[in-house]
Amino acid sequence: METTTRLILPEVIEALGTDPQELAELTEELHPADLADLASALEPELAKKLLVVLPVEVGARLLENLDEERRGELFAALATADLQRAAAITDEMAADDRADLYATIGEELRAELLKAMDEEESRDVRQLLSYPEGSAGSLMTTDYVALPANVTAQRAIELIRETAADKETIYQAYAVDQNGTLLGVVSLRDLVVSPADRTISEIMEPNIVSVQAEDDQEEVARIIAKYDLLALPVVDRHHRIAGIITIDDAIDVVEEEATEDVQKMGAVEPLEQAYISTPFRELVRARAPWLVVLFVAVMATRNVLEHYSAHAAVMLMWFVPLIGASGGNSGSQSATLVIRALAVGRLEPNQAGRVLLRELAVGLTLGGILALFGMASTMVWESSRMAGMVLTIGCALICVVTVGALLGSGIPLLLHRLGIDPAVASTPFITSLVDIAGLILYFEIAGLFLA
Amino acid sequence: METTTRLILPEVIEALGTDPQELAELTEELHPADLADLASALEPELAKKLLVVLPVEVGARLLENLDEERRGELFAALATADLQRAAAITDEMAADDRADLYATIGEELRAELLKAMDEEESRDVRQLLSYPEGSAGSLMTTDYVALPANVTAQRAIELIRETAADKETIYQAYAVDQNGTLLGVVSLRDLVVSPADRTISEIMEPNIVSVQAEDDQEEVARIIAKYDLLALPVVDRHHRIAGIITIDDAIDVVEEEATEDVQKMGAVEPLEQAYISTPFRELVRARAPWLVVLFVAVMATRNVLEHYSAHAAVMLMWFVPLIGASGGNSGSQSATLVIRALAVGRLEPNQAGRVLLRELAVGLTLGGILALFGMASTMVWESSRMAGMVLTIGCALICVVTVGALLGSGIPLLLHRLGIDPAVASTPFITSLVDIAGLILYFEIAGLFLA
Repeated sequence: METTTRLILPEVIEALGTDPQELAELTEELHPADLADLASALEPELAKKLLVVLPVEVGARLLENLDEERRGELFAALATADLQRAAAITDEMAADDRADLYATIGEELRAELLKAMDEEESRDVRQLLSYPEGSAGSLMTTDYVALPANVTAQRAIELIRETAADKETIYQAYAVDQNGTLLGVVSLRDLVVSPADRTISEIMEPNIVSVQAEDDQEEVARIIAKYDLLALPVVDRHHRIAGIITIDDAIDVVEEEATEDVQKMGAVEPLEQAYISTPFRELVRARAPWLVVLFVAVMATRNVLEHYSAHAAVMLMWFVPLIGASGGNSGSQSATLVIRALAVGRLEPNQAGRVLLRELAVGLTLGGILALFGMASTMVWESSRMAGMVLTIGCALICVVTVGALLGSGIPLLLHRLGIDPAVASTPFITSLVDIAGLILYFEIAGLFLA
Repeated sequence: METTTRLILPEVIEALGTDPQELAELTEELHPADLADLASALEPELAKKLLVVLPVEVGARLLENLDEERRGELFAALATADLQRAAAITDEMAADDRADLYATIGEELRAELLKAMDEEESRDVRQLLSYPEGSAGSLMTTDYVALPANVTAQRAIELIRETAADKETIYQAYAVDQNGTLLGVVSLRDLVVSPADRTISEIMEPNIVSVQAEDDQEEVARIIAKYDLLALPVVDRHHRIAGIITIDDAIDVVEEEATEDVQKMGAVEPLEQAYISTPFRELVRARAPWLVVLFVAVMATRNVLEHYSAHAAVMLMWFVPLIGASGGNSGSQSATLVIRALAVGRLEPNQAGRVLLRELAVGLTLGGILALFGMASTMVWESSRMAGMVLTIGCALICVVTVGALLGSGIPLLLHRLGIDPAVASTPFITSLVDIAGLILYFEIAGLFLA
């Protein structure tokens, strides 16, 4: 929360109880995003009261800027108390935010609200609701500017002026024919700069980047970022325009996708809500399966140790965690670098060979560095008499760090090649694999030097 | 690379050798971002040739869309061969991209290019170059629209039309007084919609969100995303406007910052370049210090094991990696969730107590689940006779998983409280701490049940 918002919070709470007039003054100059912060910090009952007291249009802006989970709760509470007002507020909301809101409320309430809307708008909402979460369709809004291709720049600006109030953006307008087929895109910049009598078809850019409603939101964000677009049109199979996705939604997607990737890399099923508002059950559900899978995988280490400990010196056992951690850390580093590079599209599949060669070299170098530390400390601890032990630790470190680097980079690359999201090769998963491989290597090397 | 770009690559390479005219036709319809992809895929010598053959303005767009590292190399090669052309291309570049480019080339070349520019523009570049990397100043452009507050909407649109070609965006204009003090912001949307004779001071929004040139780019991106801004003004101490940062730069920052956080969390010093173009030395430098630090930290496990193994049953040693991994994985999960929530500003410092309580509960639950698996498998392996062993494994798993959850969440929260970036509490770091604590707990518990 911004500091200014935090400072007026107590006054807002007081005004809510006593003086709605003062409340209007307090909140008048707040940006809707700050107003949403304020509502989030209030008790549910007070937040609901705020929505009742504020002008309908301000309430709509507030809801547009609220977290999805809190928005659903707050709106459901309002609708239960005052359905008329709830319907009036959604009338004022942007089409995409309204559809998102409707997706999070109960079916009964949704049906009631849809019944209260006029036919065309209700069809619009139903259409937007039909796209799966995470698709281009679920991000888009139908409030875009469409223009006939044969009007002049001057006429186009007039048309835009007349309808601007209802549009998500007027900075990009889309030239369409009578079937709604997308012919080109023209920016308000081009319209303003071009001579008044030029037609849209002369000004427009006919080479348009577009997506389909089923495309993934990650792809949408990638395209918007790559081509520096303010808005990206969504078309159907017949290249008819269905909606647009604006860059402010793309920025949220980039952050959301990064969060999902980070969570997967930490062996957590991506959470649907913010961590702090995720219910306890949900947290356990997102974490337990991975912990169990990893536990079962690492169980193999017990058998490896049982097998080798029959013959090995006790001293060898003392170094087991150190060897395992070194390989695991190296693997985590490689996996982190490769998974992220793949996620941001900075690594092409045909570079896999080059990556593995480099990781081999990096692994050997890093392993060599650790080996120096490991051998030096072994000499100190084991009072230098046991040359075999010193050599075992040195060789084992070089091997496990290199194996870590190779598995950490190779497994994500393999998953990517197979069309599986490489982020599922979480760092704990890589660590577990390296643990098992590392132990076997360690004892085999010890067998050579300490036989 | 987009498929279409990949498809014309061979033709472009051929045309570069034989037929510049065909080249112009091939590349004419390409978006500058695709052209940049193309240049990235070419051998350096051919890429340089492409810049020589393309029109100067197209070359400028190409450079604007190229990776920083490749841009610097390509431009330096061009400047060595043809300084005139290199200077002409930078003349056409956006002010912010040009300054970024100048920051990556050698000092001598930069001095030569600055000498060739006119006085005012050269001062402008020097100013932009003076801001440290990662600051708002380093992201901003000086190509913004400033308007006197007393002109009418109609006049303002005329003024914008006249200067549009040189501006980064014309969709936000900034009302300033004769000293350059920022008075308000007005969007082209407001200008187009409002009656022609209204003055800017009547239309503009006087409550402006702005940043200072020294502010961090992460804060810039947060503000742009939060308030859905197309551009954010940068002001000096006297509230005079110095430049603007556009949303397309913010989207790159969000991705860049997420990458840095991911790398830190994987115990890698953030790389300056893309993974694949990072030199070998740089990769080792980014990874070796952390590996060594973690190695030294985990060394403690050797002493812990030496201490306990004197009295403990050999069988206890077999479970060391399993116990360590379970605690480490739980810690990785907690650290991932908390670090990311802090990074995206979805966790407030005053929620630390609530987080720790929840992690305690989650840790106990997850530990309980793993304990069931652990005890069941111990009964199978150790043929159920040793009740003490089964109890040891069960209790140890509950304890280490809980300790993992508490350390994994608590350490990032503590670092955040101390003003240190919580992402430095990498998952390998958490894993190492949990390893040591977990081993001690495990053997102490064993002492109770197996005494």
